[in-house]
Amino acid sequence: MHTGAVNLVTIDDITAAAARIAGTAVRTPLLPCPWTTASDRPLWIKPESLQPVGAFKIRGAYNAVARLSDEQRARGVVAYSSGNHAQAVAYAARAFGVPAWIVVPEHTPRVKVEATRSHGAEVVLVPVGERESRAHEIAEREGAALIPPFDHPDVIAGQGTIGLEIIADLPTVDVVLAPVSGGGLISGVAAAVKALKPDAQVWAVEPELAGDTAASLKAGKRVSWPIEDRNRTIADGLQSQPSDLTFAHEQALVDGIITVSEDEIRDAVRFLANRTRLVAEPSGATSVAGYLHHATELPKGNTVAILSGGNLDPETLHDLLKP
Amino acid sequence: MHTGAVNLVTIDDITAAAARIAGTAVRTPLLPCPWTTASDRPLWIKPESLQPVGAFKIRGAYNAVARLSDEQRARGVVAYSSGNHAQAVAYAARAFGVPAWIVVPEHTPRVKVEATRSHGAEVVLVPVGERESRAHEIAEREGAALIPPFDHPDVIAGQGTIGLEIIADLPTVDVVLAPVSGGGLISGVAAAVKALKPDAQVWAVEPELAGDTAASLKAGKRVSWPIEDRNRTIADGLQSQPSDLTFAHEQALVDGIITVSEDEIRDAVRFLANRTRLVAEPSGATSVAGYLHHATELPKGNTVAILSGGNLDPETLHDLLKP
Repeated sequence: MHTGAVNLVTIDDITAAAARIAGTAVRTPLLPCPWTTASDRPLWIKPESLQPVGAFKIRGAYNAVARLSDEQRARGVVAYSSGNHAQAVAYAARAFGVPAWIVVPEHTPRVKVEATRSHGAEVVLVPVGERESRAHEIAEREGAALIPPFDHPDVIAGQGTIGLEIIADLPTVDVVLAPVSGGGLISGVAAAVKALKPDAQVWAVEPELAGDTAASLKAGKRVSWPIEDRNRTIADGLQSQPSDLTFAHEQALVDGIITVSEDEIRDAVRFLANRTRLVAEPSGATSVAGYLHHATELPKGNTVAILSGGNLDPETLHDLLKP
Repeated sequence: MHTGAVNLVTIDDITAAAARIAGTAVRTPLLPCPWTTASDRPLWIKPESLQPVGAFKIRGAYNAVARLSDEQRARGVVAYSSGNHAQAVAYAARAFGVPAWIVVPEHTPRVKVEATRSHGAEVVLVPVGERESRAHEIAEREGAALIPPFDHPDVIAGQGTIGLEIIADLPTVDVVLAPVSGGGLISGVAAAVKALKPDAQVWAVEPELAGDTAASLKAGKRVSWPIEDRNRTIADGLQSQPSDLTFAHEQALVDGIITVSEDEIRDAVRFLANRTRLVAEPSGATSVAGYLHHATELPKGNTVAILSGGNLDPETLHDLLKP
């Protein structure tokens, strides 16, 4: 399938990715959420926070590393990331026994930096605006392969395995909600869901304070927001912007987008801890914030919210869970 | 299989239970825990906190209600419980469309009482010593079936499905750790594990402050502790004592028992939230407390800790997660 000049990821790409990641990524269950009383839109949570790196990113990263040639892979891998992709690439590299360099912005939560180091990677802390250029420098110097956080078909196909699992576990799904930032997650999920169940809807949920994707989809072209603006949201994993590749997927396959406030995100973190017994980072809880606070903007029916990650500092978690 | 005068639950009972509960109980994954660095005893968590009632109890309760005759079941069900079994019976009753009366001690965490009511059951609050007698009174008055929290083969067989799933997902498991109180969970799990992999070990973990099972296994007979003593532990779901039936399973099938302190339980709750992104109630975290703080007392090898439940008040959770 393609749109304009860009080839979209196919269901075959995603099915192949699913075979590669089996045994490394956890096959997360769909968790029915009987606490929600909205009988016209029952909720299931897809808890990607339970992955060994605490986020869905292991799917795309592992698929991308697996797709390298043996020779390429042996020289190692490089990634730049606000955190969860970093852990994912480090984890995948160690699974293959190859070196990893991870370029991380200085303001990244400490728990994410420590986790990345614990997976055996060399962590390079840089000012937020320099992470991409530094990653390219290291890749050139070491001859290592750069594994981008979202702008690659192999990464998108890996994230799309979440969509396969949703359709397999809940064939009657009507609506899938996913956080959006760089767009790797929603691009893959939408490619899978629309291929297998074209009448199901896929909606993006984005923080108001990093609402560039909503602005872009409205404008019909990519609209850039200054990084200083995007950095305002507590959802530190949702501060990237789509690439040509992910934006093409979003325009072709995503049915709609809603934005959520910071308070709504905080409320969703509390809901997930107290009602579904899941620790979510603010970025990961964004889809649930959309469900809880913007139901009237969304289609009705069996709804799956992807909880995309659960990595946050103990201090931040404690603050967020204040009753 | 039987020991003395008591028939133990069989693997056939447990396999039949697994077929009954499929589609109601969540098939929980085994979560690898790369944060633990003990290479001689890698850890997986079995997160029963993710069940729709927040605890493993749905397995036994649903199996027991499913085993009633249609006529029996239509008259409704009664349960007495410190909380999680209450929710489980209420949930199972609603799934079958029959009434439920739940007798709950007055000091039960509010979140558990509210959850039980939310599943459509009538909640009867009584002093802690009276819950069993009141449940029997209601059963007689209404002609309803009493679903005991642990002292019944159908309940034990339901809980045993956890053991089936562990062996299916990790055939190389060496050690299974489970919290112990009334003993329904460990009896069922041990019956499954020992039938399918006799060389795997099943260990019980118990709060020191409610250490009656450890005392009983040491004495070779059931030793009763006053309820006032057992109520001292923060693990409010582990204040029951074994029955003849569950103690017979424990004597025949459980390889060992360790006890954990209150501080070790609190530490395990923090570990689970911050490292594995799971909300555990103190009772549910007890097995992980044993792994983290008593490794030298346990066999080595691939270890699965059953996180049995995650229902606790938001205030208690917030207090426990103070860094």
